[in-house]
Amino acid sequence: MNPEIKKDRISYDDFAKVEMRAGVILAVEPIPKSEKLLKLTVDFAEADVTGTRTPRTILSGIAKYFPDSSVLVGKKCMFVTNLEPRPMMGLESNGMILALSTDDGAFSLLEPNAAIPVGTKAK
Amino acid sequence: MNPEIKKDRISYDDFAKVEMRAGVILAVEPIPKSEKLLKLTVDFAEADVTGTRTPRTILSGIAKYFPDSSVLVGKKCMFVTNLEPRPMMGLESNGMILALSTDDGAFSLLEPNAAIPVGTKAK
Repeated sequence: MNPEIKKDRISYDDFAKVEMRAGVILAVEPIPKSEKLLKLTVDFAEADVTGTRTPRTILSGIAKYFPDSSVLVGKKCMFVTNLEPRPMMGLESNGMILALSTDDGAFSLLEPNAAIPVGTKAK
Repeated sequence: MNPEIKKDRISYDDFAKVEMRAGVILAVEPIPKSEKLLKLTVDFAEADVTGTRTPRTILSGIAKYFPDSSVLVGKKCMFVTNLEPRPMMGLESNGMILALSTDDGAFSLLEPNAAIPVGTKAK
């Protein structure tokens, strides 16, 4: 049975504060001097002020699950997209990848099916 | 480009309040007098006080996407699991299925891969 201590209950409004969207990983780079982190370039179909489609940089501590990180390129998966920007290793991370992992090494990203457009929000 | 208005920024602690776990749908029933709702019986590997494995009832407004709702039985997908219980149609819903949908009818559940045990939390 699940030994985890239950979290406090939350309201629907607490949940609704969290924006989670489908993004496509366009590029992956290792971070020098970090064994854990990968630098992901992720498209959410967002535009900058000039209307140019502009991906985000998202740093993620998932390197150990992807010895060949190139397999991540092209994957559509879920991210938290409204976290405060976070400085890490001299870069700024603008989101967080959503994943499931267990103590004994199982790991999964959350990949919506192919029909879901980039930028779609979970609800 | 994505026309949605950005949500307010949140802290990591705001995100961490939300518990999202993988559950397996054990049974699905239509709700009498509701065209939208399905009654899902979902296992999260939780036990009651006697140690008996006890699934939850979760009501979900996804009926229109599943004309044959039996295809949901056996699916492992993601749920918000620490919302306040919510009375609906004379039943009590103890969670919310996580899904992505678009105005033009695309729909996807979020299904982790097979190696992820029931009850595992997203983080």
